[in-house]
Amino acid sequence: MSKGITPRSEDYSKWYNELVVRADLAEHSAVRGCMVIKPYGFAIWEKMKEVLDARFKATGHQNAAFPLFIPKSFLSKEADHVEGFAKECAVVTHYRLKNAEDGSGVVVDPDAKLEEELIVRPTSETIIWNTFKTWIRSHRDLPLLINQWANVVRWEMRTRLFLRTAEFFWQEGHTAHATKEEAVAEAELMLKEYADFMENYLAIPVIKGYKTASERFAGADETYTTEGLMQDGKALQMGTSHFLGQNFAKAFDVKYQNANNEENYVWATSWGVSTRMMGALIMAHSDDKGLVLPPRLAPIQVVAVPIVNKKTIDRLDDIRAVFDKIQSGLGGDVRFKLDDDDSKRSGFKFAEYELRGVPVRLALGPRDLDNGTIEIARRDTLEKMVIPIDEAADKITALLAEIQQSIYDKALAHREAHTTKVDDFDTFKQVLDEKGGFILAHWDGTAETEEAIKKATKATIRCIPIDAIEEAGSCVFSGKPSNKRVLFARAY
Amino acid sequence: MSKGITPRSEDYSKWYNELVVRADLAEHSAVRGCMVIKPYGFAIWEKMKEVLDARFKATGHQNAAFPLFIPKSFLSKEADHVEGFAKECAVVTHYRLKNAEDGSGVVVDPDAKLEEELIVRPTSETIIWNTFKTWIRSHRDLPLLINQWANVVRWEMRTRLFLRTAEFFWQEGHTAHATKEEAVAEAELMLKEYADFMENYLAIPVIKGYKTASERFAGADETYTTEGLMQDGKALQMGTSHFLGQNFAKAFDVKYQNANNEENYVWATSWGVSTRMMGALIMAHSDDKGLVLPPRLAPIQVVAVPIVNKKTIDRLDDIRAVFDKIQSGLGGDVRFKLDDDDSKRSGFKFAEYELRGVPVRLALGPRDLDNGTIEIARRDTLEKMVIPIDEAADKITALLAEIQQSIYDKALAHREAHTTKVDDFDTFKQVLDEKGGFILAHWDGTAETEEAIKKATKATIRCIPIDAIEEAGSCVFSGKPSNKRVLFARAY
Repeated sequence: MSKGITPRSEDYSKWYNELVVRADLAEHSAVRGCMVIKPYGFAIWEKMKEVLDARFKATGHQNAAFPLFIPKSFLSKEADHVEGFAKECAVVTHYRLKNAEDGSGVVVDPDAKLEEELIVRPTSETIIWNTFKTWIRSHRDLPLLINQWANVVRWEMRTRLFLRTAEFFWQEGHTAHATKEEAVAEAELMLKEYADFMENYLAIPVIKGYKTASERFAGADETYTTEGLMQDGKALQMGTSHFLGQNFAKAFDVKYQNANNEENYVWATSWGVSTRMMGALIMAHSDDKGLVLPPRLAPIQVVAVPIVNKKTIDRLDDIRAVFDKIQSGLGGDVRFKLDDDDSKRSGFKFAEYELRGVPVRLALGPRDLDNGTIEIARRDTLEKMVIPIDEAADKITALLAEIQQSIYDKALAHREAHTTKVDDFDTFKQVLDEKGGFILAHWDGTAETEEAIKKATKATIRCIPIDAIEEAGSCVFSGKPSNKRVLFARAY
Repeated sequence: MSKGITPRSEDYSKWYNELVVRADLAEHSAVRGCMVIKPYGFAIWEKMKEVLDARFKATGHQNAAFPLFIPKSFLSKEADHVEGFAKECAVVTHYRLKNAEDGSGVVVDPDAKLEEELIVRPTSETIIWNTFKTWIRSHRDLPLLINQWANVVRWEMRTRLFLRTAEFFWQEGHTAHATKEEAVAEAELMLKEYADFMENYLAIPVIKGYKTASERFAGADETYTTEGLMQDGKALQMGTSHFLGQNFAKAFDVKYQNANNEENYVWATSWGVSTRMMGALIMAHSDDKGLVLPPRLAPIQVVAVPIVNKKTIDRLDDIRAVFDKIQSGLGGDVRFKLDDDDSKRSGFKFAEYELRGVPVRLALGPRDLDNGTIEIARRDTLEKMVIPIDEAADKITALLAEIQQSIYDKALAHREAHTTKVDDFDTFKQVLDEKGGFILAHWDGTAETEEAIKKATKATIRCIPIDAIEEAGSCVFSGKPSNKRVLFARAY
């Protein structure tokens, strides 16, 4: 390994960018704004997908696949929706290349122009609701609970690996219901599933809440969100769930017949989480030495490094045997790696596995063998301990659970220490600039005030927390009356 | 359920198209040539992915993700490659829409024209080799064994669900090696993995072989293929594995330093199977009543239907209890569904599960209960048997294995009955027209003869079988000498 990563204290943004690349998670591609997710990063994303997919299925959802392309006219059918997405989309206009007449290579064949342009999906509500139209006839067809794992494209001008890329990977749930109540319950259920996943797997505590009207998804009646807090005191929107009302049903004329043979428009939700969660995972826990991964999502949970040199190489087989025994003791579910590559020094390996965030590292040399002990290091606190070999498997099992919890606790303590109740605008600005984090403050409920605060401070209303306490107060900006505090922060 | 499907004997092609839609596997979307894969069809594809993904990982491959878009200039870097793909690709030329001035909706914003057009990937060799260039420095970085599950787009003019669609889903393996021998071994290994999967899961026997030069992948030095035979006597190419030589390494300047510090171009393979396998699965086994699915890929392996009416509804709980006990006896790995929906008649259900290809169907009514017996029906042969309830679990377990084998045996027998050795061109044409299937015939090895046969008969050389026996003969068309028979057929 060459030099270290820029410390967070020096330049948090640079630290993040370097870490993503150095830890082999992702890199920029030759296509502006599109990333390459490298095998190590993809293994973490696959783990996330696996857990989420099982949860979606357990709650009755089925996977399907819808086209990558959306006819331009479809986007226009829901007024807010097209307004939200038309300005940043990849447009397919032709379907053929041909050899340039001057022999300089291939050019677009002007004779192969599409009659109607196709948009690379930025999200799939329109193409899916056009399909649902033929799938839904009667109340017996409802609820229709569909999910899709897909790539989508939004032509962002400023991109950052995982956090904001032109192409990204996500799942999008799209459901149809007979009643408003059922649709709202679905949107709330998926919000809860997301929050549980984020807390129990990503080890990131999140605030569940409603977006204000101006921050809603384009075409939604209500957008629910999960907001996490990163180490630099900025918020990150980690997943959203939308109650779409009858907006798309009306735009695509999707009605069902109820038990009394009456026709009604159906009610809809959509919900999604994306590779953006990779960015959250990195920023919430990692340190100046590299990634800190929660054990439940770590591609390698335990790495075992034999410590031998030329003189002690004859002990290698004994060391391997001890590691094998420990691995057996852990059982097949623990992702264990033995690194006995003799072309790299152990110090180099230690640094590499710290960079990659492997939760538990074992080191075993001839002296340990003689003593019947082994060194165990945990990545999150960098603590080392030497314990009897016989106790290793139990200790590691306990440690994996402990690290998962400890990372979460640390992130929660950080959030609590960086959540401030504020009652006047000077303090509001001061807290934002000096301390950062979440601010709980009263707001008068108007888009004008929201916009004015954003302009003055770059802070936005992240959400109106679902569990906000009713209390009389006055807006931190306008002084007008308010009955609950909302959550402000500067955000990614 | 409404009327049945068109019988195969009447119109095989229509039978296929109707079956795909009626069995809820897939349907055409509003976007020309792009399909919607419906939940039931997607569940089969997911099962295929799960098995293949585990095999790829077991053979040392890692998943990653590369951009959807390929800069136009990249395609041009490998001469054969661009020739093969330029004529049928979706081209992104703009990145923004805007409101039309006449208020008629949105139009492409001419100010948002890309400097260089982007191609929606038809396959990813070029973008991946451009990335490998920075990943590969030394022999220590090799072999590099990468796979990607992705959607790709080829602008086909005539499309058919699963078999040939503009957008389709696949995996594409891309590997880099230090030596030619290693790369060839990799291409052959993956061919073998594909063939094993097709025979053991899809239950379709395949012929492994080499493509002729004119049928090779654009940019390959050798293309290996697996060819299956459908019930109508036409061949289907089910998966290919390519030895790419140093073609892409040279086009993208990818070299590695060997142990002696010498620089060499690396050697490459790529290999892929796609949703086309869904088409093969359907066409190889299904009948006029619907799908016949091999148990290993069936989303539902066993369906249990209680037979009660208004008079006997009080026995329903006892029937459910028996089904529960049978399900327990089968263990958690068997995909079991109890259908106790009382809004549908059992005759309707039987037809529906036959249409969907559920391998084993259980039916249990009051009289069976009294007798301690149960009716078991197998989908492949449509046989029914009545056996003691206590023996049901064991019988079903045995039956699932038996059906898997039996479907394969039937497909193999069909292939053997439809593989004909032919030594003169009149017989060649006659066999093609009257019997169909594979023809093993001598060929003089020239592209001219290959083309002439194709023109005259629409039959192509599917492959030169890997295990072709060396024997002296004369070309079925030109009479020139040949040393082995090759495999001809009309194909999808």
